[in-house]
Amino acid sequence: MTRVAVICGGVGAARLLNGLIRVTDPAGVTAIANVGDDVVLHGLHISPDLDTITYTTAGAVSGERGWGLEGETWQAMTELGHYGGDGNRNWFSLGDRDLGTHLYRTSRLAEGAPLSSVTAEIAARWGLRFDLVPVTNDRLRTFVTTVDEGEIAFQEYFVRRQHAVAVTAVRFEGAEAATPAPGVLDAIATAERIVIAPSNPVVSIDPVLAVPGVRDALAARRADVVAVSPIIGGKALKGPADRLMTELGREASVVGVADWYRDLIGTLVVDEVDADAGPEVEALGMTCVAMPTIMASVEVTDALARACLAGGR
Amino acid sequence: MTRVAVICGGVGAARLLNGLIRVTDPAGVTAIANVGDDVVLHGLHISPDLDTITYTTAGAVSGERGWGLEGETWQAMTELGHYGGDGNRNWFSLGDRDLGTHLYRTSRLAEGAPLSSVTAEIAARWGLRFDLVPVTNDRLRTFVTTVDEGEIAFQEYFVRRQHAVAVTAVRFEGAEAATPAPGVLDAIATAERIVIAPSNPVVSIDPVLAVPGVRDALAARRADVVAVSPIIGGKALKGPADRLMTELGREASVVGVADWYRDLIGTLVVDEVDADAGPEVEALGMTCVAMPTIMASVEVTDALARACLAGGR
Repeated sequence: MTRVAVICGGVGAARLLNGLIRVTDPAGVTAIANVGDDVVLHGLHISPDLDTITYTTAGAVSGERGWGLEGETWQAMTELGHYGGDGNRNWFSLGDRDLGTHLYRTSRLAEGAPLSSVTAEIAARWGLRFDLVPVTNDRLRTFVTTVDEGEIAFQEYFVRRQHAVAVTAVRFEGAEAATPAPGVLDAIATAERIVIAPSNPVVSIDPVLAVPGVRDALAARRADVVAVSPIIGGKALKGPADRLMTELGREASVVGVADWYRDLIGTLVVDEVDADAGPEVEALGMTCVAMPTIMASVEVTDALARACLAGGR
Repeated sequence: MTRVAVICGGVGAARLLNGLIRVTDPAGVTAIANVGDDVVLHGLHISPDLDTITYTTAGAVSGERGWGLEGETWQAMTELGHYGGDGNRNWFSLGDRDLGTHLYRTSRLAEGAPLSSVTAEIAARWGLRFDLVPVTNDRLRTFVTTVDEGEIAFQEYFVRRQHAVAVTAVRFEGAEAATPAPGVLDAIATAERIVIAPSNPVVSIDPVLAVPGVRDALAARRADVVAVSPIIGGKALKGPADRLMTELGREASVVGVADWYRDLIGTLVVDEVDADAGPEVEALGMTCVAMPTIMASVEVTDALARACLAGGR
C-alpha cells in the first residue's frame, strides 16, 4: 500500500483525489484539507472544502456546480430570501440536503467534538475509504484586504462578491496559534508521496501551509512533494487564482506557481500547453512534467493521479 | 379600536388569535407569547410557540400537524438522520422551508437584534396585522423533573419523549433575571381586555407568568382578564396539560384551571360539556361562562373570540 498525503483545497483537489483513490489503495491516502474558508452562517458551521471533497469523492456532488449535492432542493434558501431588510441573506447557497450536513457538524462541534472527529464521521456516512482530515481543529479563517472595502472575510469575497474585487493582501486569522490536527504531520512525514493538489495557492493551499509545522514538514520531504499547477496557460481553470497571484505581485503562470512552492516541492506537474515553460520551472530547482491536467475525463484524471504517485516521472 | 392583550402558548392560542383578528381590529391585538419552550438545536434558535402563532395566523400552518408549514419538505431532516452514532438526531422535525425562519432568526440574534425585533420582522414577512411579542428577550427555558430521568429540557420531554413520562416539577430557568420585552407590561396595563388563551397552564402560560412583573400586571387587571380553559371534560384537547396538572397535585378539570388562575382572572370560559362545574368555578371568585370551545370551525372560533372580548358575557 502506497501512503500518499494530499494537500487540498476544494474542487481541483476533490477531482484529483477521485483519481488517486481509483489508481491506488484509498486506505493509504490522507487528504489534508483547508479550513480557512470555513464560515459560520446563520449559526451553522460550514466547511466548504471538506464538503466538496466529501461529496465529490462520494460521487454525490453536483456535476454542474462542482459543489453541493446533485439533485439538491433549495426550499430553506428560498424562504430565507423572503426575510430581512437587505433581501440578500441567502447569498451563500445552502441546499436542503446539504443543510443536514451543516446541522450535524454544528451539533457535534457544540457537543465539544473536534472538527477532525466530525469530519471522519461525515466521511464515514458518505462511505469514503480514504482519510479526510482538516489541517487543524483550531479556528483558522482567511481574510482578504480589498482595494475598495478594506479587509473582508473570505466567503464575503469569494461567494458574495464572486471574487470580482481586487485584493492587496491575504491573512490567515488564528494561524499562529493553530496546531495541526491529529495525524497531519505524521501523514506528511511518513507518506511515500506528498501531493499538493491543483488548488488555489493563495487562498486554498497557503492557509494549510500557515498552520505551524506544516510548511516545515513539507519542506523536509521536498524531494517527494509533487504539486499540480492550478494555472494553465496563464489562467485558473476556475476561481481567482490567476488574478490573486497577479494582484499580489506574482506571475500568473506555471513559473509563478513553481516560484510560490519553490521551497516545498521537488516536482511541478504542468499542463501540456505550458510545456515550453519547463526549463524556466526547472531553473527554480525542481523537476517539471508536462501532461494533460484538465480533469474532464476519468482517463486524464487517472493518468494525472498516476503521474503524481510516480513523482511526476 | 379595542385593545386586547393575549397571553399565548402555541396551537390553542394561535387558533383563538385567528378568531380574535377576524372579529376585532387586528391592530388592537397584542399577542404575548411563551418562549420557555425555545431551544437551540444544531446551532439554530427555534421558537416553537412564536412560529406556530405566526404560521397559523398567516394561514400557512400545516392543518394536519398544527405546527410547521403546509406543503413542507423534509430533505434536511432526512439527511441529518443519516448521520451520527445514535441515529436519532432528527427527533425535532425541522422542515426545509421552516429552516429558513430558523436560519433568519439565528442570524439576527447573532447580529445582536433582540428576539422581539426579530419576531416583528418575521411577523412582517408573513403579513401579520397584530403585534406578536415574546414575553421576554432574555433567556427563559422550561425544564421538567421526570420520575425516571431527573430534570430534562422541555423539548426533550415534549417532543423527544412525546410527553409520555411522569413529571414531578417544572422550573423556568432564567425567569428571575428576565425582564418583560418592550411593550408587554404596557399592553397588559392598557388593554380593555386581557385573554389567557387555552394553552397549557403548566408549561405554556406559567413561563409567561414567571417573568417578573407579568403576574402582577395581570392580577392588577383581574376583573378584565378572561381565560379559556384548555381542559375539556377533564382532558386536554392536545398535549399533556391534564396529566401535568394531575402529576403536580392539581385537579385536571375546569375547576383545577380556575384554581390555577384564581388570583389572575375575572372570568373563565369553559366548554359546554363542563357547564355543570359553573357553580364550583364561581365559588373560586370568578364568573364562569360555558360555551362551545373546540375551535374546529370558524363559527365556533369566532364566537369564542367574541365571548372573550365581551369578558365572557
